Amino acid sequence: MHRFEIRVRYGDTDQMGWVYYGNYLRWFEIGRAEMLRSMGRSYREVEEDLGVLMPVLEARCRYFHGARYDERVTLETGLLDHARATMRFGYRVRGEDGTVCAVGLTEHCFTSRDAKLVRPPAMLRDLLGVAPPVDDELRGLLGA
Amino acid sequence: MHRFEIRVRYGDTDQMGWVYYGNYLRWFEIGRAEMLRSMGRSYREVEEDLGVLMPVLEARCRYFHGARYDERVTLETGLLDHARATMRFGYRVRGEDGTVCAVGLTEHCFTSRDAKLVRPPAMLRDLLGVAPPVDDELRGLLGA
Amino acid sequence: MHRFEIRVRYGDTDQMGWVYYGNYLRWFEIGRAEMLRSMGRSYREVEEDLGVLMPVLEARCRYFHGARYDERVTLETGLLDHARATMRFGYRVRGEDGTVCAVGLTEHCFTSRDAKLVRPPAMLRDLLGVAPPVDDELRGLLGA
Amino acid sequence: MHRFEIRVRYGDTDQMGWVYYGNYLRWFEIGRAEMLRSMGRSYREVEEDLGVLMPVLEARCRYFHGARYDERVTLETGLLDHARATMRFGYRVRGEDGTVCAVGLTEHCFTSRDAKLVRPPAMLRDLLGVAPPVDDELRGLLGA
Repeated sequence: MHRFEIRVRYGDTDQMGWVYYGNYLRWFEIGRAEMLRSMGRSYREVEEDLGVLMPVLEARCRYFHGARYDERVTLETGLLDHARATMRFGYRVRGEDGTVCAVGLTEHCFTSRDAKLVRPPAMLRDLLGVAPPVDDELRGLLGA
Repeated sequence: MHRFEIRVRYGDTDQMGWVYYGNYLRWFEIGRAEMLRSMGRSYREVEEDLGVLMPVLEARCRYFHGARYDERVTLETGLLDHARATMRFGYRVRGEDGTVCAVGLTEHCFTSRDAKLVRPPAMLRDLLGVAPPVDDELRGLLGA
Repeated sequence: MHRFEIRVRYGDTDQMGWVYYGNYLRWFEIGRAEMLRSMGRSYREVEEDLGVLMPVLEARCRYFHGARYDERVTLETGLLDHARATMRFGYRVRGEDGTVCAVGLTEHCFTSRDAKLVRPPAMLRDLLGVAPPVDDELRGLLGA
Repeated sequence: MHRFEIRVRYGDTDQMGWVYYGNYLRWFEIGRAEMLRSMGRSYREVEEDLGVLMPVLEARCRYFHGARYDERVTLETGLLDHARATMRFGYRVRGEDGTVCAVGLTEHCFTSRDAKLVRPPAMLRDLLGVAPPVDDELRGLLGA
């Protein structure tokens, strides 16, 4: 799986003292963008050059352990699976000491700028063929 | 189900022109807080008076239709189910014209301030007994 | 000045236990949008019907007292002043007990969709003539 | 001045297609945290080990040029000035091509955990003596 490190910021926390639960979906966005970049492409290119958007159809997150302010967390991202018109990414967030903070998935479709469903462009299909898959442990946790 | 209206703000949108997908989890938070309030209690009381936190174990959201800037959306919230140590809320977000924008669920446990699992206090158990349930349509969509 | 009430949400707080300082700028956005709406217009109309954007040139906020989770705060918004090509709004945020939590201002210009400076459309100029002004106390605090 | 690079994320943008104006205050937070870290300390240490909080008394931001999705922006941070009980940081945000996107400042005081004003601890006073100052161009822009 692709790995990318980020730092927890003050504004990410809430008064419980851990990262607010909604912010993990932002981390998933960072994870999939950086995985794409590591494969030589960027989601900005997909949008700007190909005119294809990848809106989220579904998002899930299971929370195991709160991430703390200033902690350096690792976003692990991989391809979970893909069908003709959709694809799913899997994510695992690890704390500084390796503890699993959360796991999750997002499902995406492909649309034109005016929100019509389209087939994924060849460039994306090619990428899906070589994208790092999620590992078995994560696949098991996601029950998917 | 409990209903609560909110307005989409500029800062909620992203450059696709709809509400950013992570912000729906914030809306779910608003939905469950206002459902609790409609039953005569507040989550602030639960935290401050009872010393009990209700961290999120799992969150899911399925996105059907993007919400737009300045749109008045309705958060529909209900109890999905509960067990001895956990409970789940279900949510449906409707746009101004009634279109379903998204549905989702959150699962919560009960902990003390120092993050130890506790049994839900009697006040919360009593509330769970009279909380508005999710309707059948939502239950079906959530597959839960 | 125009008044609008909002509720502090969990996701607005940070681990200090008060509202994160950056979120006040979101509240200012809500304040000016609702002031405009109270005058019979909406910022969405300005963007969609007139094709005019009002990007922020400057924002300032002075923080006096932290707002707390679940507190009902009042956004007070008024016109601070305007010139041919710019205008400024002033804001005061009051806590549930009337305490002033923060004051601030934003300065805006008018642009077309492709980011070119334009003169404010007649509809906006007319509104500026009848908009509720900031009160003297706030004008003093803003030193403006 | 201290330099730190970050990437603009999708969730940072709004429907205008640039970064939402309130998010620059989050960037300022990142800038001052990383400047402190570059000097061998972390703000987490200040809070946890010294029990001192540094709440924001004032924040200002002037916006010159919008930052775009996926752009790599540089946060430049320096000490603006300090007095016995307060200190101010100055910030400049540069886009990928060096364009100045925004400049700003924050003023902070020092408090104990129960929100009482305190004198800055010796460790912080020592750091202030060796912190990188803002450059003259920024000082001029900030008019401070």
